[in-house]
Amino acid sequence: MKLVELAARLEVEFSGDPEATVERVSEFERSEPGAVTMAVGARRGRLDSARASVFIVESTGVTEEERHTYNLLLARNPKATFAKAIHLLHVGCQAGGGIAPDFIIGEGIELGDEVTIHPRVTVGRNCRIGRRAVLHPGVVLGNDVAIGDDTVLFPNVTLYEGVTVGQRCILHAGVVVGADGFGFAQENGHHVKIPQIGTVIIEDDVEIGANSTVDRATLDVTRIARGTKIDNLVHIAHNCRIGEDVVIAAQAGLSGGVTVGRRVAIAGQVGVNPQVEIGEHAVITGQAGVTKSVAPNDVYAGTPITRLRDWKRERIVAAQMPARLPQIEARLAALERALALLSEEEPE
Amino acid sequence: MKLVELAARLEVEFSGDPEATVERVSEFERSEPGAVTMAVGARRGRLDSARASVFIVESTGVTEEERHTYNLLLARNPKATFAKAIHLLHVGCQAGGGIAPDFIIGEGIELGDEVTIHPRVTVGRNCRIGRRAVLHPGVVLGNDVAIGDDTVLFPNVTLYEGVTVGQRCILHAGVVVGADGFGFAQENGHHVKIPQIGTVIIEDDVEIGANSTVDRATLDVTRIARGTKIDNLVHIAHNCRIGEDVVIAAQAGLSGGVTVGRRVAIAGQVGVNPQVEIGEHAVITGQAGVTKSVAPNDVYAGTPITRLRDWKRERIVAAQMPARLPQIEARLAALERALALLSEEEPE
Amino acid sequence: MKLVELAARLEVEFSGDPEATVERVSEFERSEPGAVTMAVGARRGRLDSARASVFIVESTGVTEEERHTYNLLLARNPKATFAKAIHLLHVGCQAGGGIAPDFIIGEGIELGDEVTIHPRVTVGRNCRIGRRAVLHPGVVLGNDVAIGDDTVLFPNVTLYEGVTVGQRCILHAGVVVGADGFGFAQENGHHVKIPQIGTVIIEDDVEIGANSTVDRATLDVTRIARGTKIDNLVHIAHNCRIGEDVVIAAQAGLSGGVTVGRRVAIAGQVGVNPQVEIGEHAVITGQAGVTKSVAPNDVYAGTPITRLRDWKRERIVAAQMPARLPQIEARLAALERALALLSEEEPE
Repeated sequence: MKLVELAARLEVEFSGDPEATVERVSEFERSEPGAVTMAVGARRGRLDSARASVFIVESTGVTEEERHTYNLLLARNPKATFAKAIHLLHVGCQAGGGIAPDFIIGEGIELGDEVTIHPRVTVGRNCRIGRRAVLHPGVVLGNDVAIGDDTVLFPNVTLYEGVTVGQRCILHAGVVVGADGFGFAQENGHHVKIPQIGTVIIEDDVEIGANSTVDRATLDVTRIARGTKIDNLVHIAHNCRIGEDVVIAAQAGLSGGVTVGRRVAIAGQVGVNPQVEIGEHAVITGQAGVTKSVAPNDVYAGTPITRLRDWKRERIVAAQMPARLPQIEARLAALERALALLSEEEPE
Repeated sequence: MKLVELAARLEVEFSGDPEATVERVSEFERSEPGAVTMAVGARRGRLDSARASVFIVESTGVTEEERHTYNLLLARNPKATFAKAIHLLHVGCQAGGGIAPDFIIGEGIELGDEVTIHPRVTVGRNCRIGRRAVLHPGVVLGNDVAIGDDTVLFPNVTLYEGVTVGQRCILHAGVVVGADGFGFAQENGHHVKIPQIGTVIIEDDVEIGANSTVDRATLDVTRIARGTKIDNLVHIAHNCRIGEDVVIAAQAGLSGGVTVGRRVAIAGQVGVNPQVEIGEHAVITGQAGVTKSVAPNDVYAGTPITRLRDWKRERIVAAQMPARLPQIEARLAALERALALLSEEEPE
Repeated sequence: MKLVELAARLEVEFSGDPEATVERVSEFERSEPGAVTMAVGARRGRLDSARASVFIVESTGVTEEERHTYNLLLARNPKATFAKAIHLLHVGCQAGGGIAPDFIIGEGIELGDEVTIHPRVTVGRNCRIGRRAVLHPGVVLGNDVAIGDDTVLFPNVTLYEGVTVGQRCILHAGVVVGADGFGFAQENGHHVKIPQIGTVIIEDDVEIGANSTVDRATLDVTRIARGTKIDNLVHIAHNCRIGEDVVIAAQAGLSGGVTVGRRVAIAGQVGVNPQVEIGEHAVITGQAGVTKSVAPNDVYAGTPITRLRDWKRERIVAAQMPARLPQIEARLAALERALALLSEEEPE
């Protein structure tokens, strides 16, 4: 692709030779002619050390000399532009298309145009599969499942009965959506299963990482809103409501009935207690235990959960205690001895 | 189903119109005619705000007016009765029944009456599958696996060779039972695999959540006793012995050789050290690290593990330290200054 | 099926009796009349020792005598032709060694000698599968995957496009290798996917536990070096580099770009921050949060990470604080009172 076309498709300006040819994306350090790479931070100062044909740089502060020496894509957000360049140059060639001859389906299925269904896919009754959706080998859909246009289900994904997945979603291998919520009543010392007859709705543009699990609601809906991104091995329990554009990192776990506001960021291995509410734009740092609801727009850490700045202060003091405590007690003892001495000296 | 029949099948008394018809279960707030719902707590006082045909209420303290105005199911344990009502009205209709034509089996298999085997199921040699068992698509059984009556294996469950699962168990999608325990010997700086030739026995009425893993024992048996319920993404290592009616929440992990007493409750993301013993009826709170054996009948928290009340006290003090410590040191300094002053003033 | 028809359907030339009948595929050593088998390598020189009616051989170097003595299918890629023959001739049930009749493969596959491919296995284009490798039911390989000799993939393992696995590796059921790394750029408050076009290389003698996940690198390689052993439900993010002979216990999680030195031991439920480096022979104890890089040859604990001996000291003091702090404050108050008394008594 020529630089002029690449710039147009990435919707950024460029400088340099419009006819320069770009065939692939590469890392800065290993770039070769024919590649486009990104140069931000310290790398911006040493464009001459890389062999790429085109550099994505921040649009501000470009010198006249840089404009004359290099082919540049001038981006307001170089990282996002780089991501789009990868999309443009590398993605989209994997699926052969078409429907495998061994496709096993129930009655009443609706298949959109241009779906790709790999071998070993099993689909229950009354499912709807949107246009250009891709179902990889081993995917299993229960009855009454709906999948939106352009959604990709990687191998061995299981969607239980009645689950709905929106458009442009990506569910990685081994994801399970719609298994029973973990709910039991107590009776005579035994756990009696509370049947889970709700469902799961995953809205558009959601990505879920490998082997993550999203449970169906007891009676109602477990919902993951538009644009939310979930990493590997994450657990979302029954009746959770995850807002838009949330990020949840690997191995985090949300208990039943948790509400997560839009644009919240939850780091790896975080645990969240049942029924807790996490306010919009809040950030929960790694391994924290969200033991109670937290307000929007702040950063939290620790178990029990507290504001990050308080947690840091507490951690610093705690680390100092083995040294500071004996000092305090020594000073106390010295004072006590001195005072005892003084009292003895007192003219009685 | 008529109210009189519903009450009989739920084994509770009722009041109101025996001919009232119930077709489904619903949430209190959204209930419609034809539904049965549960009214406990604050909802009990506002039965008139719901449109359900029948209410499950606690059997004590029902007024004469309530008896005349509403159709009631009078339960000693409303939650358990509600759970049974869901079972009765909603579950059991999903599978078409029968054995898929592409069922791949080894020699010597025994199939119980009325088993349902979905497409894409693979079963090794000498397996026994109990009556009315359901094997969903993608299930794989190694050789010599036994599954009890009425047990359900959801899609893509894998049972390794020799594993035994009891009656009325539910294994959700992606569960793996019987993979090798994680055991290695050291030799010349390398890890030499210790072959894991034991097995796993899962007793009756056990439920295991999506993508959880239970490893086979090194030589003996990893055992999960009757009635135990395990959530998603839980790890049970080799040679663990889990007692009856235990509950283990999502993402908890048990190291090798752990013993868990009956009716223990382990919360989410708890980790348990190798060979530790958790006494009967103990409760381990979320994210705790069970670094040593703990006594029965108490509640534990933190890493290293401690009694919950001690952990709470410790956490409160730790949170106060950033404020209290400077105060203490200021008071010490003031005392030291005052004492120095006094000493100077002393008539020497 | 007659030889002439078989050759046509396999799209290869043949020599011998066009009317020769072939009913099934069999292994070379056990072949009987009516079977087609493959003769490559050492077997090519001893066609007379087998009883098959038809042999699939490489099309080059066929002697005039061979042409006259045997019925031959002359294949450019005998293994691929053999695989297609299995597909063509076998419908229905089979298990045990050899290659299952329902093996679904893309073009250009290379199969080593004595591979075992169970039913329900799906393999993409241009894959290489080493000698004596075993692929259990439900295994899915994307395009361009390479698997070394003697490697075992247990049921429902998924290897995404382009992944490489070395020799003598064991990947337990449900393992996912090569799913997209969790990388997003921010744009107008939304998360824009950064395509992950790198890959994963797993070297020789690696074992990975059930349902663990290893993500592909963004542009480069996620690498797990020789001899490393990984337990169940472990998460290895994009661009991690794990050294040789490392041990990682269950439910540990490594963020993006983590470097782990050789012979490191990481205990269960440990979390590691992005870009952190763990020095050789370091030991990280259970549930620790490796918040920054740590030096070789030491033992670490806690979140934030610290040396084990410091962490222990800190934990001991923290546990004592609820008792020691009130004592300190009582002694302070006593001193303050005593001093006040002394000051009052002072002759002013």
